[in-house]
This record gives sequence, structure tokens and C-alpha cells, in this order.
Amino acid sequence: MSDSQDDGLRELYASFTRRLEAEPEMSIDGMRALFEQWHLATAEPTDVTYRESADAPVPATWCVPLRSDDSRVIIYTHGGGFVVGSRHSHRKLAGHLATRCATPVFVIDYRRAPEHPYPAQVEDTVSVAKWLMKTEGLAPADIAFAGDSAGGNIAVSSALRLSQEGLAPAAVVAMSPWFDMENSAGSLDENAQYDAMVDQSTLKIMTGLVLNGQPPRTPGANPLYADLSALPPTLVTTSQHETLRDDATRFAARAKAAGRDITLFIEPNAQHVFQMAVGRAIAADRSLEQIGEWVRAMFTR
Amino acid sequence: MSDSQDDGLRELYASFTRRLEAEPEMSIDGMRALFEQWHLATAEPTDVTYRESADAPVPATWCVPLRSDDSRVIIYTHGGGFVVGSRHSHRKLAGHLATRCATPVFVIDYRRAPEHPYPAQVEDTVSVAKWLMKTEGLAPADIAFAGDSAGGNIAVSSALRLSQEGLAPAAVVAMSPWFDMENSAGSLDENAQYDAMVDQSTLKIMTGLVLNGQPPRTPGANPLYADLSALPPTLVTTSQHETLRDDATRFAARAKAAGRDITLFIEPNAQHVFQMAVGRAIAADRSLEQIGEWVRAMFTR
Repeated sequence: MSDSQDDGLRELYASFTRRLEAEPEMSIDGMRALFEQWHLATAEPTDVTYRESADAPVPATWCVPLRSDDSRVIIYTHGGGFVVGSRHSHRKLAGHLATRCATPVFVIDYRRAPEHPYPAQVEDTVSVAKWLMKTEGLAPADIAFAGDSAGGNIAVSSALRLSQEGLAPAAVVAMSPWFDMENSAGSLDENAQYDAMVDQSTLKIMTGLVLNGQPPRTPGANPLYADLSALPPTLVTTSQHETLRDDATRFAARAKAAGRDITLFIEPNAQHVFQMAVGRAIAADRSLEQIGEWVRAMFTR
Repeated sequence: MSDSQDDGLRELYASFTRRLEAEPEMSIDGMRALFEQWHLATAEPTDVTYRESADAPVPATWCVPLRSDDSRVIIYTHGGGFVVGSRHSHRKLAGHLATRCATPVFVIDYRRAPEHPYPAQVEDTVSVAKWLMKTEGLAPADIAFAGDSAGGNIAVSSALRLSQEGLAPAAVVAMSPWFDMENSAGSLDENAQYDAMVDQSTLKIMTGLVLNGQPPRTPGANPLYADLSALPPTLVTTSQHETLRDDATRFAARAKAAGRDITLFIEPNAQHVFQMAVGRAIAADRSLEQIGEWVRAMFTR
């Protein structure tokens, strides 16, 4: 255990960046193989078992803590710019979330861009939630959403869509979310030197792939332009020094202006989704503890 | 569950081969990223928890079934031609092995070639065994070795070295082992059309990397030339139709000629390390069941 904010994570991100720069024509398959190794930043969580779902709407894996309240579920949508990442790259993070929340986490392989542009990701996540309500007999308030980076966007957008249908989940957690499909944040320049992975040019490529010509202010794809009047209680975390910081702060300001229950944690000197270093870095562990306490409070109030 | 012998595995191997052919100059890092996805063939095992070792001689992960005899350990050495693969690519297979054997499996990241040629792999595995004897208070007979492909070679070679030091383990399991560092097997040609991944030219490259100029008949690197007089009870599995079949059959014949306790299972119409499809293919499940029964019998006799 290190007391650095991102033990190992910065170097992993830097290695991804070096590989991408060394091979500017890398295929989508090559990028996906590269980012499957995201999990290397994360310590293997203890006291968690796993089980693939046989019949969910999309491929999905249950992460079930040994001590767990199985009457509730957290649906986890992984990061990766809508294009890369998977339930495998984020299994360990989901497992840590499960133990901290004492709740099963259902980590899903929503369809990815460019094969499946927006709204496939949100549609899949909403489908999974409805399927869980039906097959597990869960009420909407027994479900929470959590995700990181693009998966934080998907979590918020899916929760908003369900809320607008009268199926509001208990809570949403978005870690280092990427909301702004215009990629206009001041933090993109301000933190460009610090952030070892996320930069504006990559975001623009990813935006093109997921939007596929749809406007960047599409409310269902860009929570900075969504109607937040039905937003469930939401916890957003970011780093003061990551390029996507202003996505989190602008969203939190909008949610607060809309009178919603919004909590914002800003960690200094941390990389994008610094929670990926959980089990290896104190800041990540502390954040997961906070998230766990917050989610349990939302489920039981 | 499919009744095919290698549900999904053949297509995964074919995709690896296509990626390698499309990019003949792929870097070692690129190949490692590619083969990290080996785990995609394997269903997530249920009723297993994981724990990283904090102080083993090499990075390693405990795979512990919920029902487990913790007085014994299986050390697992993954495949990947001594160059690729990891405790992550083989975690799920190790987890299935753990439940079938009702024994914790310790899957290790031995040092890989070309950074670390032979005998680094065997030295690391032997070190891990001695470390487990010391820190866990295990007798040599409380330890078994298991591995696939190049990891099957490492398992056998490590067990032989320990046996020659009077520290014979209880048993060795080698799935589709690669033993022959001269790559002279008739099955290399005979099964070239069937085997979707392993071919002679790749094996020759891997041999060059791991031997680094050492003779291909080095007994500690090539079990076909090792002294088998102290071989522990050994179970070897292979496919009738894989290119490395004759490594398994020649080794089994030599072990039998040396009067050792050797068991050989030959599965028809199966890909290399067909057990990687466990949880998805009946032949893989059946093989893991057989391996589990055999290992438990070796531990308790």
C-alpha cells in the first residue's frame, strides 16, 4: 500500500499513451486489447465471488461479496470512451465497490461504439435495469447505478431516462465522468500536463465514434444539457488535476441549481478514475469507503 | 453450455492468429496484450475468492474455493510459450481447477522470456514451492503442480528439480504441454490444419527467446531429455488433433518406460489447452472433473 494518490496508475496510463503514440494507426481491436489491461492498476478484491449471468440482455457478471444484501443491486457501467473497456477490465473495481457497499454489483458489457453508436449504451443499461426489476423482483429504489469516465455518463443518462419513466433508481455514482461531448472544458488544457491518459484529441475521436453525426448537445448523450429535474441522488468524484475535472464540477453545479441531491468529491493530485488503484493507493481506498457509505445511506433512507 | 469440444476457443485462437498475421511486426508488448485475452474463452468460475499474495517470491494470486482443504496447495504455471500469458489470463482456469480439486490454487507470474530466459521460469516456480513450504508450513507432499502448454513444461521441470532435491511434490498436471524444444513432433505437420493457434514457426521463435542459445536438449528445459527416475505421479492431457500432441505422448511413453506413475488423457477434436473453455464446453468440464478427481486421489493416498 502506498500513500501516493495513484500508485502505479499514472505509470500504467503513461504506458498506454506511449503505446498509442508509437502506433498511431492502431486498430480498434488493438486499442481494446491494450485497455483490457486497465485492471492491472487494481488489486484483486478479497471476499468476492463472481458469476456470469446466463440470460441478461447483454453479457454481464455478478460480483457478489461474501457479506451482501442481495435484495439490492448496483449496475456498473465501465469506462473506456464508449469504445474500449469491458466487464473484465473493471471486474476488480466492481468487486471492491461491491464489498464497500455490501451489495452485489452487476457489471455489464453494454454495446460499444463505433459498431453501436449512442444511444445503444443507454438503451442496454436501461434494459438491464428493467430486466433486473422483472427477474429479481426488485423495485426501482433497490437499484443504484455506478460507472467511471464514459461509464459515468452512461450511469447518469440511464438513471435520468428511468427517472423520467417513473422508475427512479436509489442513487447514481459517477467517478471521473465524461459528460461534455463538445469537449470544451477549461481543465482539458489546464491539466493537460498532469493527466497521463485523457487528452482532447482522443476525446474528439471517441466523440465522433459514439455520436456518429448526432449533435454533441443531445441531452441523452450529454448530461450537461439534460433535464436534471428528476435526477436521483448523485455522487460525483473527480480529480482536481485531471483533464475531465470540469465535466464533474459543471454537472454538479447544474444539479445543484436544479435543486437535486448532489455530492461532489474532488481529490487533489490524482489521475483519471483514481479509484482504479484501489487496494494499492490510500486515496483510492478512501474514496471507495466514502462511496460505500454514501450508497448504503441512499439505499436505506 | 455447448457439446462442442471447444466452444468459442477455436474462434478465439483463430482471431489471435489473424491478428498476428495482420501485424507480423507486432511488439512483445502487443503480443502480451493480445494473449491477455485468452481468459475470454473461460467462464467465470463460481464460489471462488481471490487474494493477491503480498510477499511471495514472484507476483501471485490465491484462488480459494469456498469449500477448500487449505492444508494443501496447487501451484499453477500458465501457458503462453514462456513469453506471453499471466496469472490474469489464466485466473479463471485456475479458479475452476481450485473448485474441482477443493484445494487453493496459487497462480504465479514467473519471469518471462525474452527478458528472462530459461532457467528463470523453473527457478521462480521452485522458489515459490519452497517459500510455501516455509511460510505455510507445508510438506512437499502437500503441494501439487499444474500448468498448461509451456506452463506444463515448467510444472514438470520444477517438480523434477524438487524431487531430485528430496522434496517431491504429490503430483503434477500438464495440460497440452509443450516439452520438445527441438519442435520435431510429427503432430506439428499432421495437425497443422486443425490447430487454430500453435504452429511450428511460432514455436521456433518462442524456443529461441526462452533458450537464448542454450541447447534444445537441455534436460531442465526439455522434459523429453530429463531424468524421469524421480518423476512424481503425473497426469498429462492433450488433444488427438493438436499440433503439440506428440509432446504429450512421447513424454508419457518415456515416463512409463522409467516405471513412473503416469496417466495420459487424449481428447479427440479439441484445440490446444481445450480446458480453457471450462464452463462453456462439455469436454473441458469433463476434463476438469477428471483432473480434480485425480489430484484429490494423489493428495490423499
